[in-house]
Amino acid sequence: MTGIAVLGTGRIGRMHAENIAAHPRARLAGVYDIHTAAAAEVAAKLDVPQFDSVEAVLASPDVDAVLIATSTATHADLLEQAVAAGKAILCEKPIDLSLDRVNACAATIAGTSLPIMLGFVRRFDTGHAGVRQAVESGTIGDLHQVVITSRDPGMAPDAYIEASGGIFRDMTIHDFDMARFILGEDVTEVTATGSRLVDPALMERCDDYDTVSVVLKTASGKQAIISNSRRAVYGYDQRVEAFGSAGMAISENHTLDHVRIHGADFTDRATPLKNFFIERYADAFAAEISAFVDAIEEGKPVPVGFEDGRQALLLAEAAIRSAAEGRTVPTSEIG
Amino acid sequence: MTGIAVLGTGRIGRMHAENIAAHPRARLAGVYDIHTAAAAEVAAKLDVPQFDSVEAVLASPDVDAVLIATSTATHADLLEQAVAAGKAILCEKPIDLSLDRVNACAATIAGTSLPIMLGFVRRFDTGHAGVRQAVESGTIGDLHQVVITSRDPGMAPDAYIEASGGIFRDMTIHDFDMARFILGEDVTEVTATGSRLVDPALMERCDDYDTVSVVLKTASGKQAIISNSRRAVYGYDQRVEAFGSAGMAISENHTLDHVRIHGADFTDRATPLKNFFIERYADAFAAEISAFVDAIEEGKPVPVGFEDGRQALLLAEAAIRSAAEGRTVPTSEIG
Amino acid sequence: MTGIAVLGTGRIGRMHAENIAAHPRARLAGVYDIHTAAAAEVAAKLDVPQFDSVEAVLASPDVDAVLIATSTATHADLLEQAVAAGKAILCEKPIDLSLDRVNACAATIAGTSLPIMLGFVRRFDTGHAGVRQAVESGTIGDLHQVVITSRDPGMAPDAYIEASGGIFRDMTIHDFDMARFILGEDVTEVTATGSRLVDPALMERCDDYDTVSVVLKTASGKQAIISNSRRAVYGYDQRVEAFGSAGMAISENHTLDHVRIHGADFTDRATPLKNFFIERYADAFAAEISAFVDAIEEGKPVPVGFEDGRQALLLAEAAIRSAAEGRTVPTSEIG
Amino acid sequence: MTGIAVLGTGRIGRMHAENIAAHPRARLAGVYDIHTAAAAEVAAKLDVPQFDSVEAVLASPDVDAVLIATSTATHADLLEQAVAAGKAILCEKPIDLSLDRVNACAATIAGTSLPIMLGFVRRFDTGHAGVRQAVESGTIGDLHQVVITSRDPGMAPDAYIEASGGIFRDMTIHDFDMARFILGEDVTEVTATGSRLVDPALMERCDDYDTVSVVLKTASGKQAIISNSRRAVYGYDQRVEAFGSAGMAISENHTLDHVRIHGADFTDRATPLKNFFIERYADAFAAEISAFVDAIEEGKPVPVGFEDGRQALLLAEAAIRSAAEGRTVPTSEIG
Repeated sequence: MTGIAVLGTGRIGRMHAENIAAHPRARLAGVYDIHTAAAAEVAAKLDVPQFDSVEAVLASPDVDAVLIATSTATHADLLEQAVAAGKAILCEKPIDLSLDRVNACAATIAGTSLPIMLGFVRRFDTGHAGVRQAVESGTIGDLHQVVITSRDPGMAPDAYIEASGGIFRDMTIHDFDMARFILGEDVTEVTATGSRLVDPALMERCDDYDTVSVVLKTASGKQAIISNSRRAVYGYDQRVEAFGSAGMAISENHTLDHVRIHGADFTDRATPLKNFFIERYADAFAAEISAFVDAIEEGKPVPVGFEDGRQALLLAEAAIRSAAEGRTVPTSEIG
Repeated sequence: MTGIAVLGTGRIGRMHAENIAAHPRARLAGVYDIHTAAAAEVAAKLDVPQFDSVEAVLASPDVDAVLIATSTATHADLLEQAVAAGKAILCEKPIDLSLDRVNACAATIAGTSLPIMLGFVRRFDTGHAGVRQAVESGTIGDLHQVVITSRDPGMAPDAYIEASGGIFRDMTIHDFDMARFILGEDVTEVTATGSRLVDPALMERCDDYDTVSVVLKTASGKQAIISNSRRAVYGYDQRVEAFGSAGMAISENHTLDHVRIHGADFTDRATPLKNFFIERYADAFAAEISAFVDAIEEGKPVPVGFEDGRQALLLAEAAIRSAAEGRTVPTSEIG
Repeated sequence: MTGIAVLGTGRIGRMHAENIAAHPRARLAGVYDIHTAAAAEVAAKLDVPQFDSVEAVLASPDVDAVLIATSTATHADLLEQAVAAGKAILCEKPIDLSLDRVNACAATIAGTSLPIMLGFVRRFDTGHAGVRQAVESGTIGDLHQVVITSRDPGMAPDAYIEASGGIFRDMTIHDFDMARFILGEDVTEVTATGSRLVDPALMERCDDYDTVSVVLKTASGKQAIISNSRRAVYGYDQRVEAFGSAGMAISENHTLDHVRIHGADFTDRATPLKNFFIERYADAFAAEISAFVDAIEEGKPVPVGFEDGRQALLLAEAAIRSAAEGRTVPTSEIG
Repeated sequence: MTGIAVLGTGRIGRMHAENIAAHPRARLAGVYDIHTAAAAEVAAKLDVPQFDSVEAVLASPDVDAVLIATSTATHADLLEQAVAAGKAILCEKPIDLSLDRVNACAATIAGTSLPIMLGFVRRFDTGHAGVRQAVESGTIGDLHQVVITSRDPGMAPDAYIEASGGIFRDMTIHDFDMARFILGEDVTEVTATGSRLVDPALMERCDDYDTVSVVLKTASGKQAIISNSRRAVYGYDQRVEAFGSAGMAISENHTLDHVRIHGADFTDRATPLKNFFIERYADAFAAEISAFVDAIEEGKPVPVGFEDGRQALLLAEAAIRSAAEGRTVPTSEIG
């Protein structure tokens, strides 16, 4: 049983802690949060130790690995400390809002053989992974286009948006990683455009967009289209489509159950979409822990690593520049 | 934490043991099987005690409840013993193949206030429960017809079929309970017909059918139609439709994931159906344990009880007679 | 160009007249109705002659064939007269409400080589025909079960219902024919049950049902299940499912268009079903005319003939008796 | 009855001629093609006059209107001649491959009150029009994003591709018009990218692309995304999605019929997509003729006019420039 400590017990850290506690091959070695009350609550509920400092976590022989789910600004520091302490790492995205800091972190940890995994959870969704499998297995032939639709059910709190680093770094970053996952080839060009349609005042204040379209292109000419919105009133819209020389594969949305209703005023209506990432990707979050444990216990390569996190951030930087300057930005320009 | 011991560690008992072990409010108090090696394996894997007799289980103060997943012939005896020992009970269907034995068991345990729950797991499926909810809430108005499609992915082993008590008692019994669940009113008439189409030789030998159609009717004229096959090559086909004065609700099949593929030779093809009951009703089996724990810890009524088990068996008896005699059988004739 | 005269210019006759007028290989030779004003209107609109008697129609050398869309009570007489006059016939169902009258008609016209086709239009629907094709081609292997769902969008006027001969002769008759079409084998047993749920008072007055379930069985054990309602508030529900040893084929409902809408209060809602038979089976009605013209011009056998009309009525008689007596009725008992 | 002559009897002209001949309120006044044998065949089949020159068509008092379905290079000339002759016009897209020529044509015909309609047939599809209706009626709130998927089932002949003016002018032009139809607001920015993936050698020779992605933006920030491929092996892929503040509407693909099949090796497989535009948009082509007749007979405004044709071509020009220069092109730069 691999002992994993969870750093950060906000919404997503708490969920990870529960998943680890329930995992047949992992053991929740304890939790830590700078907000000690929050950590205490999780520790009590799951009957595990609460650490009183990061140092205590990293010093504990019970801790084989850490899951970093703290605020973004602390990710890179914690990652470096954990590597220094010889702990395996599962780090929530993004590594940092600054590509320079990520590059510095990469230099600091260069040469480590510790498993360092990035939390791009959507790769572990059976539907999206099924699309990739349709590409890899040749079922749809040579890949030509990828179409990713990703819309959140509603705006996050203003404070979250203001600290998020902008939609490309905070939200589209998942889709950048998904595009890379399906494309299987480096992106060489990024073209992005953004609008302020959901909450223009907030977006103006943050110099950000709430509605974006992005087109990525690889050296061989493969294209990926991403559309994002901060608010889809009908729920969390998560679709991935791959189109190739021999066919097309689509990973469709998930509804709460499989009931369809017909009434006098409507026909063939489905139940609501699963509400947000914790519900929609529940199985994927559990599979993510399994993959992390596999990497630690069996020495398997991590399925999504530090460099994937860096590349996704690099695409976000390119998108920001593209949207600002109204031109296609070669990724070679960025990093 | 409610301590639950599992009696019988065959395929379904093992699954229940794992679900109980993983349940946040239940504790697997141990396992027992007349095949001690089978029980030992489960006990070792889940790190729980193995009991060496039913008596030991029932005498243990660690055991608040038992889950009966042994062979059918032992269900009624074990149920009576567990009641005598003051244990709550979750019993796999059917209570017995003989309605007389079930009636005798009912008499023996009459007056107990212990939670006694029957394992009609499909009631806990969110889709089928959603159909019932559409009926109860009035969404589809007054209920007129229920249509249940229930086809197994493949024939069970010959030995299982030969000991099953026939398709109506073994397979349709789940659909009888589902019909009762959706109808919300007692069935008064049963008309059934059966054919030998999948494996005529085996069916001849067992004097049984592998393909049946059943029509149930209530006093107010509501109708339920059930169609069953022992083998659907395309997978486990589980659909429930309710039709009423204000609309229709359908609980559709579940596929392994939500990927759809289009190719040169086919259009819009889904991934396979979930294979069989352990996969298809995985969430429902977990919800069943939760409902059982609720009944024990919070004194809530069991959502499906002994009398539901008796009624489903009574409908099976009526169906057997109807198919044999080519006439509609009033349930009042049976019991 | 085959000259076809239409007898009866009610709703369905008018539609047939328009279809014939628009057909590339047919010519509308004129119309006749005992209600001369109704016929006059159609004649004027389509710019064709109005006949003033059946005799005039049958005497006209311009008339190669007649389409009988008058009231049911006149069908058999007109059919006999048309045969005597040497005209090809396309007759709306049923031939008559009385099986005896149909048998007498059969005797009268015995030996004719004129094309006599019955208007079971659903056989010409590409979806339902696709299911039959999946059976005939072996795609789904040996056929085991057929499931037919057929629900009208709303009650017809009381007068229509009162004169209809009852739901089995008027409505289920289409499903009896569809079952025969898919089964490809004679039905030997009929079991039917009926309820008064939509309009109990009217049904009581007519000694009829508005909600029925029927199970048919062939000599080899194939089963067909039919469910009918006189009123589905969500529209005209027309589905056909065939299940066999190698798979299943389903002909699904048709919506008005292919738009799906997601909103804050609902998910993935389709546009309404096509309202009723004239809309739902518009293409099938046109294909029916084509098949009739093929039979006349090219001497091809009619795809659905007099005997099909007689057999469907025979099943209706058996269903009436089964529902009344609560037993399975062998078709050999009826005729 | 409006008399309409068809100029050009290639595949699409022939189809229009048949639609006009079958239309209840239109009359096919004759056909003309520079290839006299092709025109003769259509004239004979439909039993209408064959004109021996454009002048003869325009001089005929039987001709109220002309449908221009000749080769693209002749469209603008014929349009000017028809206006001079006082004939209403339905012109296939594009008006010309050159925006300058289109602008000159606009100047020439300025001030005419004749109905001049452009053949953007997809506007008449009930599904796509249903999406626009969902926007206009407010069902999906304020529009934010439009996503158009448009993939041909296979490459056209090399000669066609070589003369087409490139994918943006020939194929995407339909999607530019569809985007304008749904957006309901002028496009101000065009960003396009293209690849050579289907037939790189031919594309190289033509200096063209076979796979493109385009993002359009309006002054208010609405976005439209278009993805095109010259070859989708699974059929003619035609989908339109509109996303807004109150929901989403999708116009889905059309299959040949509504049969779904489940087998041992696949689950829930639909029949093929309708093959190409003549099948897929058959109803839309008929509705287009109706709209044209309405404009002529009832003086209704044409639903899609000359300026719509010009605007779509202008977007094509902008896309060509954007793809070539790797930057967002303001439409103000073009025209």
